[in-house]
Amino acid sequence: MNKILTLCENRGFLQKTYNAALKQDIITIFPTGALLQANLRNEWFNSSIINKDHTVFLNKNDFDETVEYARNLCNVLPFGVADVLRNKKSMKERVDLVKESGNKFDFRMYTLENDYNLKTNFYVSPKTSTHFFHQFQKQRKMWWRKFSANPGRYCYSDIKNGDKGTQRIDIIAEYEWGKQILETLTLNNDGRKKKNLEFKEGKTTFYPDIISSDISTTAMFLNALCDSYEEPVSQGKPRPLLHFHRKLAPYKLSFAITSQKASTLSELCDLALFLCRQLRDNHVSTLMLPSCSKLKLEEQWQQYDQMGIPYNIILNDNTLKDGVTLLRSRDTTLKEQVHVSDIVDYVEKLFKNY
Amino acid sequence: MNKILTLCENRGFLQKTYNAALKQDIITIFPTGALLQANLRNEWFNSSIINKDHTVFLNKNDFDETVEYARNLCNVLPFGVADVLRNKKSMKERVDLVKESGNKFDFRMYTLENDYNLKTNFYVSPKTSTHFFHQFQKQRKMWWRKFSANPGRYCYSDIKNGDKGTQRIDIIAEYEWGKQILETLTLNNDGRKKKNLEFKEGKTTFYPDIISSDISTTAMFLNALCDSYEEPVSQGKPRPLLHFHRKLAPYKLSFAITSQKASTLSELCDLALFLCRQLRDNHVSTLMLPSCSKLKLEEQWQQYDQMGIPYNIILNDNTLKDGVTLLRSRDTTLKEQVHVSDIVDYVEKLFKNY
Repeated sequence: MNKILTLCENRGFLQKTYNAALKQDIITIFPTGALLQANLRNEWFNSSIINKDHTVFLNKNDFDETVEYARNLCNVLPFGVADVLRNKKSMKERVDLVKESGNKFDFRMYTLENDYNLKTNFYVSPKTSTHFFHQFQKQRKMWWRKFSANPGRYCYSDIKNGDKGTQRIDIIAEYEWGKQILETLTLNNDGRKKKNLEFKEGKTTFYPDIISSDISTTAMFLNALCDSYEEPVSQGKPRPLLHFHRKLAPYKLSFAITSQKASTLSELCDLALFLCRQLRDNHVSTLMLPSCSKLKLEEQWQQYDQMGIPYNIILNDNTLKDGVTLLRSRDTTLKEQVHVSDIVDYVEKLFKNY
Repeated sequence: MNKILTLCENRGFLQKTYNAALKQDIITIFPTGALLQANLRNEWFNSSIINKDHTVFLNKNDFDETVEYARNLCNVLPFGVADVLRNKKSMKERVDLVKESGNKFDFRMYTLENDYNLKTNFYVSPKTSTHFFHQFQKQRKMWWRKFSANPGRYCYSDIKNGDKGTQRIDIIAEYEWGKQILETLTLNNDGRKKKNLEFKEGKTTFYPDIISSDISTTAMFLNALCDSYEEPVSQGKPRPLLHFHRKLAPYKLSFAITSQKASTLSELCDLALFLCRQLRDNHVSTLMLPSCSKLKLEEQWQQYDQMGIPYNIILNDNTLKDGVTLLRSRDTTLKEQVHVSDIVDYVEKLFKNY
């Protein structure tokens, strides 16, 4: 884990500093990491708010009022209410909590200053709640697996049965250094306490069961980094890289320019800038560094692979002659020829699907 | 303005409550409004972080460290650093500030509890900073106009010249009840104070000028609501509606089902549910209410138009026979025939472009 964090530190994802008061390393997020986090939150939004199967309302203020509003608008079960909550525990409380649990490496240990909880509550009729809960577990595990470079890593913890029929199950990721809790799913009947959740079916009155999911953004962020870390062997040497899912990658594309002549070099730089603008105009996050015409190709690729950039566009002397660029893949290191005029459409297709 | 706020209150965008301590109406955001806000922030992200012309880094932690990181990675000007900051002024301070300014209706008066400032700083060489500043003003005004139902509303304030060459210009929206400040653009040379912003060009040392944009999420949110409010006359009566740009609309589509027979009704409901799932799977935010098979068409359309939903899919007896649905537009109230199997692709095309 320390090796991964050091790589991430070098590539602008985060910074690790020792906090003497907490006797603990503290992580702060850097710009590349901030983009990763924004993408993660976006995918959570897509799966939880624009939920395929159920209508979910986003709360911004008072949770109970939103439930009331959702109830009036929907009037039938199930419906959901989602919320983004700031973790109110102080950093010290969170560190103590992890230390008690006795894990040596734990995502929650590397406390981020601003930790948020992404929470979704579903209100479900008690008759179907067990079935709903099982379906929901499967869906959530699928979601984690979908974005993973190593889907076998994700599994369930044992079910913990609490008082009054409360059930709890965690989705965990297995690492060499131990298991990490990513998401907590619970089934409970808190709804009975609340007057405004009374439903009627014929002559009987009932209260919905509540099925909820709880994700810490810190765990989600660190898991995305650790999960994607790989060390394939290339030319006898390990080639550490971050194998992000293309929807999560902070940058989708980067540029590399090679030429011997200074005049073609500046022409190619203009071309790269033109392509970069076109791509960004299509909301494709593209990294364009001034170093892309100066460093050796291998050095650049190392940098881009470690930033988890899925594709690299190579412009060389031939590009000016026949308009063909090379698109290098991070994962295969193979290059394919794409014409300059096709590249925007082609990239759109590459990144469209999950 | 009160008329608009009342409409928004009825449609789940917000809630207005009188705060006795502040002697002022306070607004809290409701679920539909929360979706609108998420879309607004998304568009800001697309235009400011995935910036067409310049590389912008997203700050999460320490602004100076991010600038340092951006500087090391880019090494040439211009580059940008963006930030999402919580407005630290208390609600009382903010209300007092507006009262001093003497405006009767002001977006900043209806204080939201969680107000954020979306801030972007560009670091530009002093030689080109004036040109950059003018370009930037144009770009930002274009951005506001792009999403507006009434683009002529947006204009610049006068330029205010401050000490040491500081310039400030606001982008304002003109309403019947007065002008509203939406975004503040400034050009200044704060950079000179900071050691780590020293740049070298040949033998001369210089410090970059800083061009920054500052948007309050409260003003952005309320402006989106007020800007989109329209009252076209239909059949002799005013038909109030929210004319959102399709990228901003909280929900893109809704359903209406009409049939005389109970058996076809349930079949059509299943079909609507199937279409709804397909659309949501494509990340199209779709509203599916149980009332869509019960209320009269006119009542539903009134509700959906006032929620700013651009299109309504109508399923009727014919749909089961020949598979043709009607797609009603909020803006024209015209209906076009679309086959059930084409609707997902067609909707994708409708919402793709700006």
